[in-house]
Amino acid sequence: MRELILIGIGTGNPDHLSFEGARAINAADLILVPRKGPDKADLADLRREILARVLSNPAARVVDFDLPRRDAENPDYRAGVDDWHAAIARAWAAAADLPGADRVALLVWGDPALYDSTLRIAARLPVPPQIRVVPGITAIQALAAAHAIPLNEIGAPFMVTTGRQLREAGFPPGCDTCLVMLDGSCSFETLPPEGIRIWWGAYLGMAAQILEAGPLAEAGPRIIARRAAARAEHGWIMDIYLLRRSV
Amino acid sequence: MRELILIGIGTGNPDHLSFEGARAINAADLILVPRKGPDKADLADLRREILARVLSNPAARVVDFDLPRRDAENPDYRAGVDDWHAAIARAWAAAADLPGADRVALLVWGDPALYDSTLRIAARLPVPPQIRVVPGITAIQALAAAHAIPLNEIGAPFMVTTGRQLREAGFPPGCDTCLVMLDGSCSFETLPPEGIRIWWGAYLGMAAQILEAGPLAEAGPRIIARRAAARAEHGWIMDIYLLRRSV
Repeated sequence: MRELILIGIGTGNPDHLSFEGARAINAADLILVPRKGPDKADLADLRREILARVLSNPAARVVDFDLPRRDAENPDYRAGVDDWHAAIARAWAAAADLPGADRVALLVWGDPALYDSTLRIAARLPVPPQIRVVPGITAIQALAAAHAIPLNEIGAPFMVTTGRQLREAGFPPGCDTCLVMLDGSCSFETLPPEGIRIWWGAYLGMAAQILEAGPLAEAGPRIIARRAAARAEHGWIMDIYLLRRSV
Repeated sequence: MRELILIGIGTGNPDHLSFEGARAINAADLILVPRKGPDKADLADLRREILARVLSNPAARVVDFDLPRRDAENPDYRAGVDDWHAAIARAWAAAADLPGADRVALLVWGDPALYDSTLRIAARLPVPPQIRVVPGITAIQALAAAHAIPLNEIGAPFMVTTGRQLREAGFPPGCDTCLVMLDGSCSFETLPPEGIRIWWGAYLGMAAQILEAGPLAEAGPRIIARRAAARAEHGWIMDIYLLRRSV
């Protein structure tokens, strides 16, 4: 593996792929695809659907690999994640260890730059390849597009943060707009809702996409109920929201 | 005009376009293209290059229009911008006033949600159409991809802000990473550089792309010099940077 190409594929709509992404797929000698686990089958199938649509290079090999599991028993969370990342890098290297596989591609959910471990895992490869990144549509953009709203107010800043940060630090200082990702527990509930509007979306870009928006006091309870129902129905959920404070 | 489709086209690489964007172009009855002014010819030509590559629907009409100029003499800046946006909306409506032009498309630099006026201008249309947004690759993503860096540190928030905000408010509170856009004057110069790294890029995604990175104290002066030289050479510049503070 002399070059590793990380290709952002967007949030679930195969048409999120860019022409640059399609070209990079076809320029690869080998495309690594994680074998789907028992959960999130919708997500695993997306990579295969994209390859079925755009891969036209008969010389490119598609190689499945088993994604190692994280040792949830490790009492040191950070060390557990480190070990897990190293194991994933070894799994990539082993699966790609084939003659002529100089240029290896990986399809990355969303964009490789945003709350994603792929770049950090790539830094663990025993022989560091050259890294190339092809950006992809993020959940932030899919949310704004679905609601047809701008992310920022005119000339104003905004924060991108996590559910945990929102719970621990409250509404971010220095701005009136924040985007909350990686929130497993509707952390907006911890904010006093007065003067805050929310734009929420789940399964963005997919057929199952659902949206809610409104003043947080009214929309918050609706979102909690719809999120729980959708999660029960699908067995998993990925969602994101924008909070805007009126000044 | 019953439907207005705003299609993000990325930052200068025609291959930034997504398959969703290409489909939306081909589903339009009419595509509005601003006539190029004397400046930034590279940018104006990009829309035509994208249409030449992907438009295959013979029924779609491509209609040029003159972008109104902002009255820089108006002493009330905000009122001047308001008037200008209203004039652009009138120019769209006039150019698209053709029989059968129900579905009208506009190609928007970057992503329509990020520091862009198109959604606000669309809200000024005399008869409000349905708005559909197709997200596009932003300069933020093109910067991270070009440097092959993640935007966020693990689980940490980041701020997206403007050169003006950075000059007036300093390094944003509550985070150690910020992305600075719309900065005409190297506002990073106003920060004490100790402990800050910068990743900078101009003309991202284009053949003319230039990158610099390093500790702000060393890279800052290099960026100022390269930016001035590139701007003199091309007659215009678009750039963006990420600042990361070590904790």
